[in-house]
Amino acid sequence: MKDLKKHNLILASKSPRRQYLMKELGLDFEVHTKEVDESFPENLKAQEIPLYLCQKKADAFDEELTDNTIVITADTIVWINNQVLNKPENFDDAVRMLKLLSGKKHEVYTGVCLRSKLKTKTFYALTSVYFKELSQEEIEYYINNFNPYDKAGAYGAQEWIGYIAVEKIEGSYFNVMGLPVRELYEELLKF
Amino acid sequence: MKDLKKHNLILASKSPRRQYLMKELGLDFEVHTKEVDESFPENLKAQEIPLYLCQKKADAFDEELTDNTIVITADTIVWINNQVLNKPENFDDAVRMLKLLSGKKHEVYTGVCLRSKLKTKTFYALTSVYFKELSQEEIEYYINNFNPYDKAGAYGAQEWIGYIAVEKIEGSYFNVMGLPVRELYEELLKF
Repeated sequence: MKDLKKHNLILASKSPRRQYLMKELGLDFEVHTKEVDESFPENLKAQEIPLYLCQKKADAFDEELTDNTIVITADTIVWINNQVLNKPENFDDAVRMLKLLSGKKHEVYTGVCLRSKLKTKTFYALTSVYFKELSQEEIEYYINNFNPYDKAGAYGAQEWIGYIAVEKIEGSYFNVMGLPVRELYEELLKF
Repeated sequence: MKDLKKHNLILASKSPRRQYLMKELGLDFEVHTKEVDESFPENLKAQEIPLYLCQKKADAFDEELTDNTIVITADTIVWINNQVLNKPENFDDAVRMLKLLSGKKHEVYTGVCLRSKLKTKTFYALTSVYFKELSQEEIEYYINNFNPYDKAGAYGAQEWIGYIAVEKIEGSYFNVMGLPVRELYEELLKF
């Protein structure tokens, strides 16, 4: 849509899923990433974590923002039993996470930050995801074949495990993939 | 998963989305379609329509089913205001449908039929989809650029319109794309 052409957009994310979603949304953008320490204060909960981290990622661009450029950063977490699941460290950690998710509801939060030289807008999206009971065989098959070590909560909704495990979701599917595209579109139109 | 390798699977659908979803589910299958009259009795409502149609599509294979073969048929409808939306006939019909969906909740039903020489299993999935208010410009942009004439309700959830319009869903996202893959996986394991 024409109104989105007035800015240069920079997506600051290595995630191929986010790049794919931005493209399908019809946006022209460049990818430009920086290494950012992804630690956060321990007292943060739920959406506070991705909102904190996406702003931290945006801060890294402060020195080089020009007029007419918007940097888009995002962070996605899986939240269950009042705790956050990050990317799994190894096979056993991935098994542990998928066993935690098995047969239960969890929440996926994505925080997004839009930053220009003069403005910052942050927002988040929440989707509830209900997993069926997973067998040990299904868990091991998935990890061995899909290596979900770059994924919060050790799963990709758009991969085999998402096909066989997800009984229902409440909210945005694209948020579970890593970017709430409808909200992003709306916020870009208003920015 | 190994338990699904014991049958020859035939997917009786021309839909590239269903073929994609079957592949991502990890299934080996052939595509084999037949022309079937897709009319249905007027008194049918909601899930009764795709359940009727998927069985009708399966009936067309009765004469040639061999042992060890399962035919999979499916039908997806959009249901709103107590009426069904089929594939749009032309541009104006697509505009009419998207205006109906704009700013409202609708239901997507997919009926699936598994048929072997000796057995039939039918089931359906329901997903509620909430659309934001669409502008005339968004509606026309979508129809002109995506030609949704092969899609029930004149939209594809995996296309641009799904990205900008869907505020939330309740249920399976893949069902909205045309095939409830988790349910299919489970029913195939039990078949």
